Amino acid sequence: MTIRLASDEDKDAIWAILEPMIRRGETYPLPREMSKSQALEYWFTPENEIFVWHDGGAILGTYFLRANQRGGGAHVANCGYVTAAGAEGRGIARAMCLHSLQRSRERGFRAMQFNFVVSTNSRAVKLWSDLGFKIVGCLPGAFQHPEHGFVDALVMYKQLS
Amino acid sequence: MTIRLASDEDKDAIWAILEPMIRRGETYPLPREMSKSQALEYWFTPENEIFVWHDGGAILGTYFLRANQRGGGAHVANCGYVTAAGAEGRGIARAMCLHSLQRSRERGFRAMQFNFVVSTNSRAVKLWSDLGFKIVGCLPGAFQHPEHGFVDALVMYKQLS
Repeated sequence: MTIRLASDEDKDAIWAILEPMIRRGETYPLPREMSKSQALEYWFTPENEIFVWHDGGAILGTYFLRANQRGGGAHVANCGYVTAAGAEGRGIARAMCLHSLQRSRERGFRAMQFNFVVSTNSRAVKLWSDLGFKIVGCLPGAFQHPEHGFVDALVMYKQLS
Repeated sequence: MTIRLASDEDKDAIWAILEPMIRRGETYPLPREMSKSQALEYWFTPENEIFVWHDGGAILGTYFLRANQRGGGAHVANCGYVTAAGAEGRGIARAMCLHSLQRSRERGFRAMQFNFVVSTNSRAVKLWSDLGFKIVGCLPGAFQHPEHGFVDALVMYKQLS
Protein backbone atom coordinates (compact mmCIF):
# COMPACT_ATOMS: atom_id res chain seq x y z
CA MET A 1 0.00 0.00 0.00
CA THR A 2 1.22 3.42 -0.86
CA ILE A 3 0.24 7.04 -1.35
CA ARG A 4 0.97 8.88 -4.57
CA LEU A 5 -0.09 12.03 -6.39
CA ALA A 6 -3.43 11.74 -8.15
CA SER A 7 -3.75 12.15 -11.89
CA ASP A 8 -6.71 12.78 -14.16
CA GLU A 9 -6.91 9.03 -14.71
CA ASP A 10 -7.84 8.59 -11.04
CA LYS A 11 -10.94 10.75 -11.31
CA ASP A 12 -13.43 7.89 -11.63
CA ALA A 13 -11.89 6.11 -8.64
CA ILE A 14 -11.91 9.34 -6.62
CA TRP A 15 -15.54 9.98 -7.47
CA ALA A 16 -16.36 6.44 -6.31
CA ILE A 17 -14.88 7.43 -2.93
CA LEU A 18 -16.40 10.90 -2.74
CA GLU A 19 -19.93 10.05 -3.84
CA PRO A 20 -21.03 7.98 -0.80
CA MET A 21 -19.56 10.61 1.56
CA ILE A 22 -21.36 13.43 -0.28
CA ARG A 23 -24.68 11.54 -0.49
CA ARG A 24 -24.61 10.70 3.24
CA GLY A 25 -24.01 14.38 4.08
CA GLU A 26 -22.71 13.61 7.55
CA THR A 27 -19.10 14.79 7.48
CA TYR A 28 -18.40 17.50 4.88
CA PRO A 29 -20.41 20.71 4.35
CA LEU A 30 -21.16 19.91 0.73
CA PRO A 31 -24.51 19.74 -1.08
CA ARG A 32 -25.74 16.14 -0.95
CA GLU A 33 -26.99 16.41 -4.53
CA MET A 34 -23.57 17.44 -5.92
CA SER A 35 -22.89 15.93 -9.34
CA LYS A 36 -19.77 14.04 -10.29
CA SER A 37 -18.40 16.97 -12.27
CA GLN A 38 -19.10 19.43 -9.45
CA ALA A 39 -17.44 17.16 -6.90
CA LEU A 40 -14.37 16.60 -9.04
CA GLU A 41 -14.11 20.32 -9.76
CA TYR A 42 -14.16 20.91 -6.00
CA TRP A 43 -11.59 18.20 -5.27
CA PHE A 44 -9.32 19.10 -8.20
CA THR A 45 -9.44 22.86 -7.69
CA PRO A 46 -6.10 24.31 -8.87
CA GLU A 47 -4.94 25.24 -5.35
CA ASN A 48 -5.17 21.60 -4.24
CA GLU A 49 -2.40 19.04 -4.29
CA ILE A 50 -4.25 15.72 -4.47
CA PHE A 51 -3.11 12.30 -3.36
CA VAL A 52 -4.57 8.81 -3.47
CA TRP A 53 -4.02 5.80 -1.22
CA HIS A 54 -3.96 2.42 -2.96
CA ASP A 55 -3.11 -1.12 -1.99
CA GLY A 56 -1.45 -1.96 -5.30
CA GLY A 57 -4.75 -2.19 -7.08
CA ALA A 58 -7.78 -0.46 -5.67
CA ILE A 59 -7.74 3.22 -4.73
CA LEU A 60 -9.35 3.36 -1.30
CA GLY A 61 -8.55 6.85 -0.07
CA THR A 62 -7.89 10.37 -1.30
CA TYR A 63 -6.88 13.65 0.25
CA PHE A 64 -6.13 17.22 -0.78
CA LEU A 65 -3.55 19.60 0.65
CA ARG A 66 -3.58 23.37 0.21
CA ALA A 67 -2.81 26.60 1.99
CA ASN A 68 -5.75 27.44 4.25
CA GLN A 69 -5.42 31.18 3.60
CA ARG A 70 -3.37 33.46 1.40
CA GLY A 71 -1.04 36.34 2.22
CA GLY A 72 -0.29 36.51 5.95
CA GLY A 73 -2.15 33.22 6.44
CA ALA A 74 -0.37 31.18 3.75
CA HIS A 75 1.92 29.34 6.21
CA VAL A 76 -0.98 27.21 7.53
CA ALA A 77 -1.98 24.10 5.57
CA ASN A 78 -5.44 22.62 5.20
CA CYS A 79 -6.41 19.10 4.19
CA GLY A 80 -9.48 17.02 3.54
CA TYR A 81 -9.39 13.21 3.64
CA VAL A 82 -11.92 10.65 2.49
CA THR A 83 -11.73 6.88 2.87
CA ALA A 84 -13.75 4.58 0.64
CA ALA A 85 -17.01 3.34 2.14
CA GLY A 86 -16.34 -0.07 3.60
CA ALA A 87 -12.59 0.50 3.94
CA GLU A 88 -12.75 2.20 7.33
CA GLY A 89 -10.73 0.77 10.19
CA ARG A 90 -7.71 -0.17 8.07
CA GLY A 91 -5.66 2.88 9.01
CA ILE A 92 -6.10 4.58 5.65
CA ALA A 93 -7.11 7.97 7.07
CA ARG A 94 -4.26 7.79 9.58
CA ALA A 95 -1.76 6.97 6.84
CA MET A 96 -3.05 9.82 4.67
CA CYS A 97 -2.90 12.31 7.55
CA LEU A 98 0.67 11.29 8.45
CA HIS A 99 1.61 11.61 4.78
CA SER A 100 0.03 15.06 4.60
CA LEU A 101 1.87 16.23 7.70
CA GLN A 102 5.16 15.14 6.15
CA ARG A 103 4.27 16.77 2.85
CA SER A 104 3.24 19.96 4.64
CA ARG A 105 6.60 20.15 6.41
CA GLU A 106 8.36 19.61 3.08
CA ARG A 107 6.41 22.50 1.60
CA GLY A 108 7.35 24.74 4.52
CA PHE A 109 3.98 25.00 6.24
CA ARG A 110 4.22 25.83 9.94
CA ALA A 111 0.85 24.45 11.03
CA MET A 112 -2.18 22.56 9.78
CA GLN A 113 -5.78 23.59 10.36
CA PHE A 114 -9.02 21.71 9.91
CA ASN A 115 -11.78 24.30 9.59
CA PHE A 116 -14.85 22.18 10.01
CA VAL A 117 -14.72 18.81 11.77
CA VAL A 118 -18.31 17.76 12.43
CA SER A 119 -18.48 17.01 16.16
CA THR A 120 -20.56 13.86 15.66
CA ASN A 121 -17.80 12.42 13.45
CA SER A 122 -16.19 10.94 16.53
CA ARG A 123 -13.90 8.64 14.57
CA ALA A 124 -12.29 11.68 12.92
CA VAL A 125 -12.13 13.76 16.10
CA LYS A 126 -10.39 10.90 17.91
CA LEU A 127 -7.96 10.22 15.08
CA TRP A 128 -6.93 13.87 14.66
CA SER A 129 -6.54 14.17 18.42
CA ASP A 130 -4.37 11.05 18.49
CA LEU A 131 -2.20 12.61 15.78
CA GLY A 132 -1.61 15.76 17.83
CA PHE A 133 -4.34 18.09 16.66
CA LYS A 134 -5.90 20.31 19.33
CA ILE A 135 -9.49 21.50 19.33
CA VAL A 136 -8.99 25.28 19.12
CA GLY A 137 -12.54 26.27 18.30
CA CYS A 138 -16.14 25.14 18.50
CA LEU A 139 -18.77 26.48 16.09
CA PRO A 140 -22.11 26.05 17.85
CA GLY A 141 -24.75 24.41 15.70
CA ALA A 142 -22.77 25.16 12.54
CA PHE A 143 -23.61 21.85 10.85
CA GLN A 144 -27.04 20.52 10.01
CA HIS A 145 -26.67 16.77 10.28
CA PRO A 146 -29.26 14.76 8.33
CA GLU A 147 -30.01 12.62 11.37
CA HIS A 148 -28.95 14.62 14.46
CA GLY A 149 -30.02 18.11 13.35
CA PHE A 150 -27.88 21.13 14.23
CA VAL A 151 -24.62 19.96 15.75
CA ASP A 152 -21.34 21.72 16.52
CA ALA A 153 -18.37 21.78 14.19
CA LEU A 154 -14.83 21.89 15.56
CA VAL A 155 -11.75 23.77 14.44
CA MET A 156 -8.62 21.64 14.95
CA TYR A 157 -5.01 22.80 14.69
CA LYS A 158 -1.55 21.31 14.87
CA GLN A 159 1.76 23.18 14.96
CA LEU A 160 4.34 21.58 12.66
CA SER A 161 7.48 23.39 13.73
CA MET B 1 -25.66 58.14 4.68
CA THR B 2 -26.94 54.84 3.49
CA ILE B 3 -26.00 51.33 2.48
CA ARG B 4 -26.99 49.90 -0.88
CA LEU B 5 -26.10 47.00 -3.16
CA ALA B 6 -22.91 47.54 -5.11
CA SER B 7 -22.88 47.60 -8.91
CA ASP B 8 -20.12 47.27 -11.46
CA GLU B 9 -19.93 51.07 -11.55
CA ASP B 10 -18.73 51.05 -7.95
CA LYS B 11 -15.67 48.95 -8.71
CA ASP B 12 -13.21 51.84 -8.87
CA ALA B 13 -14.48 53.22 -5.58
CA ILE B 14 -14.33 49.76 -3.98
CA TRP B 15 -10.77 49.25 -5.19
CA ALA B 16 -9.84 52.62 -3.66
CA ILE B 17 -11.05 51.22 -0.33
CA LEU B 18 -9.55 47.76 -0.70
CA GLU B 19 -6.12 48.77 -1.95
CA PRO B 20 -4.76 50.43 1.21
CA MET B 21 -6.04 47.52 3.33
CA ILE B 22 -4.41 44.96 1.03
CA ARG B 23 -1.12 46.88 0.80
CA ARG B 24 -0.87 47.23 4.60
CA GLY B 25 -1.44 43.49 5.01
CA GLU B 26 -2.45 43.82 8.65
CA THR B 27 -6.06 42.64 8.72
CA TYR B 28 -6.97 40.27 5.86
CA PRO B 29 -5.04 37.16 4.79
CA LEU B 30 -4.57 38.41 1.24
CA PRO B 31 -1.38 38.81 -0.79
CA ARG B 32 -0.11 42.38 -0.32
CA GLU B 33 0.85 42.55 -4.01
CA MET B 34 -2.68 41.70 -5.22
CA SER B 35 -3.62 43.61 -8.38
CA LYS B 36 -6.80 45.60 -8.83
CA SER B 37 -8.33 42.93 -11.05
CA GLN B 38 -7.42 40.14 -8.61
CA ALA B 39 -8.85 42.07 -5.68
CA LEU B 40 -12.08 42.89 -7.49
CA GLU B 41 -12.43 39.28 -8.64
CA TYR B 42 -12.08 38.21 -4.99
CA TRP B 43 -14.57 40.80 -3.73
CA PHE B 44 -17.08 40.27 -6.57
CA THR B 45 -16.93 36.48 -6.54
CA PRO B 46 -20.37 35.16 -7.63
CA GLU B 47 -21.23 33.80 -4.17
CA ASN B 48 -20.91 37.26 -2.62
CA GLU B 49 -23.66 39.80 -2.14
CA ILE B 50 -21.81 43.12 -2.05
CA PHE B 51 -22.84 46.37 -0.44
CA VAL B 52 -21.38 49.86 -0.21
CA TRP B 53 -21.74 52.55 2.42
CA HIS B 54 -21.92 56.12 1.13
CA ASP B 55 -22.68 59.52 2.60
CA GLY B 56 -24.62 60.77 -0.41
CA GLY B 57 -21.46 61.23 -2.43
CA ALA B 58 -18.33 59.35 -1.49
CA ILE B 59 -18.29 55.58 -1.02
CA LEU B 60 -16.42 55.02 2.23
CA GLY B 61 -17.14 51.40 3.07
CA THR B 62 -17.91 48.06 1.47
CA TYR B 63 -18.82 44.61 2.66
CA PHE B 64 -19.66 41.19 1.28
CA LEU B 65 -22.13 38.64 2.59
CA ARG B 66 -22.15 34.96 1.68
CA ALA B 67 -22.78 31.52 3.10
CA ASN B 68 -19.69 30.41 4.99
CA GLN B 69 -20.09 26.79 3.91
CA ARG B 70 -22.34 24.78 1.61
CA GLY B 71 -24.59 21.81 2.26
CA GLY B 72 -25.03 21.19 5.97
CA GLY B 73 -23.14 24.41 6.73
CA ALA B 74 -25.10 26.73 4.47
CA HIS B 75 -27.17 28.25 7.29
CA VAL B 76 -24.18 30.22 8.64
CA ALA B 77 -23.32 33.55 7.02
CA ASN B 78 -19.88 35.08 6.56
CA CYS B 79 -19.00 38.71 5.93
CA GLY B 80 -15.96 40.87 5.31
CA TYR B 81 -16.05 44.63 5.88
CA VAL B 82 -13.60 47.34 4.86
CA THR B 83 -13.76 51.01 5.73
CA ALA B 84 -11.89 53.59 3.64
CA ALA B 85 -8.53 54.65 5.04
CA GLY B 86 -9.06 57.86 6.95
CA ALA B 87 -12.76 57.22 7.51
CA GLU B 88 -12.35 55.10 10.64
CA GLY B 89 -14.13 56.15 13.82
CA ARG B 90 -17.29 57.33 12.07
CA GLY B 91 -19.28 54.19 12.77
CA ILE B 92 -19.11 52.92 9.22
CA ALA B 93 -18.02 49.39 10.12
CA ARG B 94 -20.65 49.23 12.84
CA ALA B 95 -23.36 50.39 10.42
CA MET B 96 -22.25 47.83 7.83
CA CYS B 97 -22.20 45.01 10.38
CA LEU B 98 -25.66 45.88 11.68
CA HIS B 99 -26.91 46.02 8.08
CA SER B 100 -25.35 42.63 7.34
CA LEU B 101 -26.96 41.06 10.42
CA GLN B 102 -30.35 42.33 9.28
CA ARG B 103 -29.74 41.13 5.73
CA SER B 104 -28.58 37.74 7.03
CA ARG B 105 -31.77 37.33 9.02
CA GLU B 106 -33.81 38.27 5.92
CA ARG B 107 -31.99 35.60 3.96
CA GLY B 108 -32.71 33.01 6.64
CA PHE B 109 -29.22 32.53 8.03
CA ARG B 110 -29.17 31.26 11.61
CA ALA B 111 -25.72 32.51 12.60
CA MET B 112 -22.79 34.56 11.35
CA GLN B 113 -19.16 33.47 11.53
CA PHE B 114 -15.95 35.41 11.05
CA ASN B 115 -13.24 32.89 10.19
CA PHE B 116 -10.13 34.97 10.63
CA VAL B 117 -10.11 38.09 12.80
CA VAL B 118 -6.47 39.07 13.32
CA SER B 119 -5.99 39.35 17.07
CA THR B 120 -3.97 42.56 16.81
CA ASN B 121 -6.89 44.24 15.02
CA SER B 122 -8.24 45.32 18.37
CA ARG B 123 -10.67 47.84 16.92
CA ALA B 124 -12.41 45.02 15.03
CA VAL B 125 -12.33 42.55 17.93
CA LYS B 126 -13.91 45.16 20.21
CA LEU B 127 -16.55 46.17 17.68
CA TRP B 128 -17.62 42.62 16.88
CA SER B 129 -17.71 41.81 20.61
CA ASP B 130 -19.87 44.90 21.23
CA LEU B 131 -22.25 43.66 18.52
CA GLY B 132 -22.69 40.29 20.21
CA PHE B 133 -20.06 38.12 18.54
CA LYS B 134 -18.31 35.61 20.79
CA ILE B 135 -14.74 34.44 20.35
CA VAL B 136 -15.28 30.71 19.71
CA GLY B 137 -11.80 29.85 18.50
CA CYS B 138 -8.19 30.97 18.56
CA LEU B 139 -5.77 29.95 15.79
CA PRO B 140 -2.31 30.17 17.33
CA GLY B 141 0.17 32.10 15.18
CA ALA B 142 -2.06 31.73 12.14
CA PHE B 143 -1.35 35.23 10.81
CA GLN B 144 2.02 36.67 9.87
CA HIS B 145 1.70 40.36 10.64
CA PRO B 146 4.13 42.61 8.75
CA GLU B 147 5.13 44.35 11.98
CA HIS B 148 4.31 41.97 14.84
CA GLY B 149 5.28 38.65 13.24
CA PHE B 150 3.19 35.55 13.90
CA VAL B 151 0.06 36.50 15.81
CA ASP B 152 -3.15 34.65 16.61
CA ALA B 153 -6.30 34.86 14.53
CA LEU B 154 -9.72 34.57 16.15
CA VAL B 155 -12.89 32.82 15.05
CA MET B 156 -15.95 34.85 16.07
CA TYR B 157 -19.57 33.72 15.95
CA LYS B 158 -23.01 35.13 16.59
CA GLN B 159 -26.31 33.27 16.70
CA LEU B 160 -29.06 35.09 14.83
CA SER B 161 -32.12 33.14 15.88
